[in-house]
Amino acid sequence: MSVAAAVEELRHRLGDKVTTNDTVREHHSKDESFHLPVMPDAVVWAECTEDVVAVVTVCNEHRVPLVPFGVGTSLEANSTPIHGGISLDMSRMDKVLRISGDDLDVTVQPGVRRKQLNEVLSSHGLFFPVDPGADATLGGMASTGASGTTTVKYGAMKQLVLSLQVVTPNGEVITTSGRARKTSAGYDLTHLFVGAEGTLGVITELTLRVFGIPEVTAAATVQFPSVRDAVDSVIEVIQYGIDVARIELLDADAVMAVNKYSGTSLPEQTLLLLEFHGTDRSTAHSIDAVREVFDRRGGTGFRQTTDEAERRRLWQARHDTSIACRVLVPNAKSFATDVCVPISRLTDCIEETQRDLADSGIFGPIIGHVGDGNFHVVMSVDPNDHVSVERCEALHARLVDRALAMGGTCTGEHGIGTGKRAYLRRELGDNAVDLMATVKRALDPNDIMNPGKVV
Amino acid sequence: MSVAAAVEELRHRLGDKVTTNDTVREHHSKDESFHLPVMPDAVVWAECTEDVVAVVTVCNEHRVPLVPFGVGTSLEANSTPIHGGISLDMSRMDKVLRISGDDLDVTVQPGVRRKQLNEVLSSHGLFFPVDPGADATLGGMASTGASGTTTVKYGAMKQLVLSLQVVTPNGEVITTSGRARKTSAGYDLTHLFVGAEGTLGVITELTLRVFGIPEVTAAATVQFPSVRDAVDSVIEVIQYGIDVARIELLDADAVMAVNKYSGTSLPEQTLLLLEFHGTDRSTAHSIDAVREVFDRRGGTGFRQTTDEAERRRLWQARHDTSIACRVLVPNAKSFATDVCVPISRLTDCIEETQRDLADSGIFGPIIGHVGDGNFHVVMSVDPNDHVSVERCEALHARLVDRALAMGGTCTGEHGIGTGKRAYLRRELGDNAVDLMATVKRALDPNDIMNPGKVV
Repeated sequence: MSVAAAVEELRHRLGDKVTTNDTVREHHSKDESFHLPVMPDAVVWAECTEDVVAVVTVCNEHRVPLVPFGVGTSLEANSTPIHGGISLDMSRMDKVLRISGDDLDVTVQPGVRRKQLNEVLSSHGLFFPVDPGADATLGGMASTGASGTTTVKYGAMKQLVLSLQVVTPNGEVITTSGRARKTSAGYDLTHLFVGAEGTLGVITELTLRVFGIPEVTAAATVQFPSVRDAVDSVIEVIQYGIDVARIELLDADAVMAVNKYSGTSLPEQTLLLLEFHGTDRSTAHSIDAVREVFDRRGGTGFRQTTDEAERRRLWQARHDTSIACRVLVPNAKSFATDVCVPISRLTDCIEETQRDLADSGIFGPIIGHVGDGNFHVVMSVDPNDHVSVERCEALHARLVDRALAMGGTCTGEHGIGTGKRAYLRRELGDNAVDLMATVKRALDPNDIMNPGKVV
Repeated sequence: MSVAAAVEELRHRLGDKVTTNDTVREHHSKDESFHLPVMPDAVVWAECTEDVVAVVTVCNEHRVPLVPFGVGTSLEANSTPIHGGISLDMSRMDKVLRISGDDLDVTVQPGVRRKQLNEVLSSHGLFFPVDPGADATLGGMASTGASGTTTVKYGAMKQLVLSLQVVTPNGEVITTSGRARKTSAGYDLTHLFVGAEGTLGVITELTLRVFGIPEVTAAATVQFPSVRDAVDSVIEVIQYGIDVARIELLDADAVMAVNKYSGTSLPEQTLLLLEFHGTDRSTAHSIDAVREVFDRRGGTGFRQTTDEAERRRLWQARHDTSIACRVLVPNAKSFATDVCVPISRLTDCIEETQRDLADSGIFGPIIGHVGDGNFHVVMSVDPNDHVSVERCEALHARLVDRALAMGGTCTGEHGIGTGKRAYLRRELGDNAVDLMATVKRALDPNDIMNPGKVV
């Protein structure tokens, strides 16, 4: 490995797209989590697929690690260059290349951000539903296997990426699929790269499914005396196939934090926050149907609105939960857990976790994508306060064990990064993880692509 | 390679689960297509995962090909043992192992057939929607990446397989995922095996998403003066997000064949056949919404029914299209094409293909899963009539080129098998297919798993 020689050659090939400036390197050393930063040796801005090919080729030749970087909103150090090397910044590849209203698909460069895409799409009457909260890049969202609040209706990145252009570790450019809505043509390369966290190649283009902006979007809130009543209601709503676009849970602590941060005055009880997409008639039908379930199961204070401003305020408050919790602790960064369990076990998993939090004296509000069985304990911790970090780590380990015993996963949507590598073998067993490692070695024999992550 | 020694050892290990009987081997030599049969050297019935491990281990040791076999309903010789060896019959592994109404998932053995599963599920108020027509095994459907008439609402096998147990080519048993509804934990091994056609391992268990049986199921038919009017209507229905469970096209020739075979008296024009799943209120809403589109776009003779018998008769007629066409040609087997294109190009693709059929003097009714952009030209041919086979092959080649030029795929749901290997490189390029081959070599270095298929 010769980083200096690689940087030298990259400068020769790519000029001022390459920098070793300290401020820039520092910016590429971390994500939004408590995981400790590690500086890359250099940062390269890719402006086109050919730039990516050049970087991959040079890194391969010099055996230098290469870590794709979007805008650093990940939560498991997924884009942190833990072995140094090159941070490959994709944010300048930010063009929406093609929009088809007839086919309900778009092709974008990986540096396009979620909100930017939706701004462009809105003038076509279209939107892209995946909403992880953060204004992440689409390339990052695909690499992490992100999802968020709308998965229950529209699916996660896994379901909505139709095709990718990828630069593989040997510097070749491949397209994983055509634009047809479905295909059985060969191995599913698209899904090999979605969720691979940049360890198998660099995504340079994405073709995504999009949807027509619904005629009517309605939001609703409802309180419950317990997590169990709320989750049982959600199970019933899902079983009946009632058409909900979002169905999110906040526990009382999360509501309290949100009220304090966002100035809302929601009752500080278990809250479900819902959204419905459709026509006047279909959303009214769905709202009636969920109300019937909620009334029967002890829901109180049901409120609905189609007022755009009020609806945006509600969802902004939901998305601010993480920061609302963080500001309660000095110098804090997020320690976000991300288990996902079969929905029948969700109440048990949340209740046991709440008890564990109380016993541990850790403040950890819970927010959940309950329609998917996925929830986050939003702990906030000063990364340099080792005692607190260790206490959170211990709680996290117990939470993962609990979720795995229930048939769940250590991560529903944040990915493995470095933060959950220890749990992957526990979750899937040695044989499955060894098989992943076999695939990794076959595609990236020199281990240059985001080494030390996932497997 | 020593087949005799392998069979000898398998007999020793598995007793009368092993046979070299001619009739049995003949049954395992072919599928439902025109592709020519090839006999396996022996057939082994697996009754449990351990049997599969034994067969894989012995085949690996003796470098003998191993081809998983369900019930032989594939259409691209996917399960034909073209290099001989062992046909591994999975049909005795036919138990439904677990049903969860709360989680809306089930775990089944791979030999469970689609109709059998739905019979078992119905007493729980549940159903599994993927419906390729044939009463295939779930293992086969996953391996082929099957879909069918309900994909537009529920998704294909790719979307509905949550997790697999697989015996890998080195004889290890892995589970690809937990039961959580979503996960970002490591590489997506589930999707690596779905659609791999048994070339990367043998599926020994599947966990599948299922759905609540809808309160109301309504069917409808409508005629159009042209394919274009019909498809443009479908595009509009999809864009508006109207909730249809099936939306199928039959061209005039297909309707004619169906009328003749099934004794229906549908007007012999382009036909759309629809189904709606929901409540009284939601299906009525959807039906009103599609009618508005159809009326505006020249649809005539709209008929709807919630009568169970009439609805079943309609869909049975649709599913019998293939056989209805086949009986028109003596000694015929199916030559089914399977292109899938972005829906905006579907009309052009169908119309150009109809002209090509007319110019070629080939009778090829067209049926289409138009909501997905997928359609089949149902040609029927005597496999020993080489001139006719060659004419069909030539038309097929032109059809695939047409679909690929439109951004589509050579196969939406039948898989590659041997029949479409030539097209895979044309579709995805050498780099992508070479990458598939790299994965294949890494997982199956001795090339024992269904050799000669896919890559």
